[in-house]
Amino acid sequence: MQTALKNHEVRLVSRPTGWPTIDNFALAETNIGEPGPGEVLVRITHMSVDPYMRGRMSEARSYVPPFKIGEAMTGGAAGFVIDSHDPSLPAGTWVLSDELGWREYGITAASRLRKIDVNVAPPSAFLGVLGMPGMTAWIGLFDIGNLKSGETIFISSAGGAVGSVAGQLAKNCGARVIGSVGTPAKAAYVKENFGYDEAFDYHGDVVKSLRAAAPDGIDVYFDNVGGEQLQAALGALKDFGRIVACGAIAQYNEMLPGPVNLPNVVRKRLRMQGFIVSDHRDRQAAFVTEVGGLLREGKIKYHESYFDGLVNAPHALLELFGGHQTGKIIVRVAPEGTNPETTP
Amino acid sequence: MQTALKNHEVRLVSRPTGWPTIDNFALAETNIGEPGPGEVLVRITHMSVDPYMRGRMSEARSYVPPFKIGEAMTGGAAGFVIDSHDPSLPAGTWVLSDELGWREYGITAASRLRKIDVNVAPPSAFLGVLGMPGMTAWIGLFDIGNLKSGETIFISSAGGAVGSVAGQLAKNCGARVIGSVGTPAKAAYVKENFGYDEAFDYHGDVVKSLRAAAPDGIDVYFDNVGGEQLQAALGALKDFGRIVACGAIAQYNEMLPGPVNLPNVVRKRLRMQGFIVSDHRDRQAAFVTEVGGLLREGKIKYHESYFDGLVNAPHALLELFGGHQTGKIIVRVAPEGTNPETTP
Repeated sequence: MQTALKNHEVRLVSRPTGWPTIDNFALAETNIGEPGPGEVLVRITHMSVDPYMRGRMSEARSYVPPFKIGEAMTGGAAGFVIDSHDPSLPAGTWVLSDELGWREYGITAASRLRKIDVNVAPPSAFLGVLGMPGMTAWIGLFDIGNLKSGETIFISSAGGAVGSVAGQLAKNCGARVIGSVGTPAKAAYVKENFGYDEAFDYHGDVVKSLRAAAPDGIDVYFDNVGGEQLQAALGALKDFGRIVACGAIAQYNEMLPGPVNLPNVVRKRLRMQGFIVSDHRDRQAAFVTEVGGLLREGKIKYHESYFDGLVNAPHALLELFGGHQTGKIIVRVAPEGTNPETTP
Repeated sequence: MQTALKNHEVRLVSRPTGWPTIDNFALAETNIGEPGPGEVLVRITHMSVDPYMRGRMSEARSYVPPFKIGEAMTGGAAGFVIDSHDPSLPAGTWVLSDELGWREYGITAASRLRKIDVNVAPPSAFLGVLGMPGMTAWIGLFDIGNLKSGETIFISSAGGAVGSVAGQLAKNCGARVIGSVGTPAKAAYVKENFGYDEAFDYHGDVVKSLRAAAPDGIDVYFDNVGGEQLQAALGALKDFGRIVACGAIAQYNEMLPGPVNLPNVVRKRLRMQGFIVSDHRDRQAAFVTEVGGLLREGKIKYHESYFDGLVNAPHALLELFGGHQTGKIIVRVAPEGTNPETTP
């Protein structure tokens, strides 16, 4: 029945050399096809844009293979099953996918999907606070950074999908929390909403701002950006401090020299550790229990910024690098309110 | 009796701005004085020059306070007691000090000295393979780098005081060992003497040399230099690789930008950890047992380069940064063969 429907997908048509532009993408119409045995057809309602996608737009080696030119991009998506050839996921089931983003409808093996409980939180939350960005914050703070009560932590991109959760989880564990953001208004926003004790605009003098916010130094730096802020953090870290190397967004689009004070790693006996959340799937259940619990108790808030329509997905990704939004950027692929009941 | 003796010491008379020069130092004559209760007078026979001393010549904050202008420098030294006011260290006892370097005679509390057994190895060895550099190699490889049999390790400054021991300990544990040095002759030397499977001159194309020596990449980088070699190692490290941040000699004398590929720490989930051997004193006994044992069994060799006379100590330190010597650089403060029997 659904084979009469037309699908739309966003393809990568050229590779960016520096910052991506809208010309790197093209919207295409396709036929949907029929799910095979063990497969389901999913109507995508929400998709995610994430910093790692920039890496996959280039040909350079990364921890995930590059997107192919002329093919649809992929990424995290939430939606519901509309045609099932697998008894484990009957039509109407809400699901999460790591790869069905950038399209309106997708066919995949039921085994590649995870059921989500939309009574706990709306589907989009499983792309943010209860999804990959939220778990990134949680793994980074505790498994990688060993953050403890009474310590001081500095988090860059404090208003972003990861930072907005990290700030609240750090505060909740008893740390003093300092954040950097892209505008003074956002600084006020993250203090008011995301548990930050202090926040500043990184466009100013980062070294001075960080010193004012943490005159005695910091114990942990949760690095979402690299570049100048990493350098400032290397200066502010106390002996035996930790750097949670989560991202280097400042360097995804440009090749920049590293920090001049990297030898501080030796002088101060620092530990800088990179991680990727998908290596930590064994911690998923513990994460959902703990952070889902905090969410239900109202101890954690989340904020989403929306782009409506698949056609606007490239704008959403560019916006992510522009850094003007707060919280998790979500593309509403289906009109708001689309659900199994409203869908034939 | 010894109070009639004249002492000589080397003082810091100005701070270097970039590379240190001979004009930063001055030799001075002083009186020796008399040890107080609990103190001993030591005749220094050998002193050490070490990279960390460059940091103390500057005013910048480091893990040890800066040397003071107009005062004698300090550092590791071996010698024997010639006048004792403490029963634990009678005259004639060979001792090691962390601070009596840069002088011919020194008075200090007996409690600040460690007895050494010159039947195990000559006194100078306690400044090298059985001392701080040797223990730095051992802690770095195993406690920090978690090196395991079958892994590939790259060690910079492979012919230096630390690298010459690290190469042999790594080989002994079953690793494949690659080193970089400052001349082709040294490359041949470290392969022949220090357990290196491959070695190259870092003045060439480091990226290409490292790729040729380790086409499948490296598991651990033991970093004694920072700079360009750290950048090459960041490129060569496999996923989940470790960087043992032991030194950054390339950056002690000049402020250089960091590696452009530092975001590899995230992509490859690397761990970069700084350490300072003096934080690991609780491991001293285990180190002496293990590495002293390997030395007695002939499984480890060591090589020393000598400068004779305290007056040449500044030249020895400058030579350390010049990188033309192999093994541990030792200043023979007393004439070769000076010992308690030959000394009244």
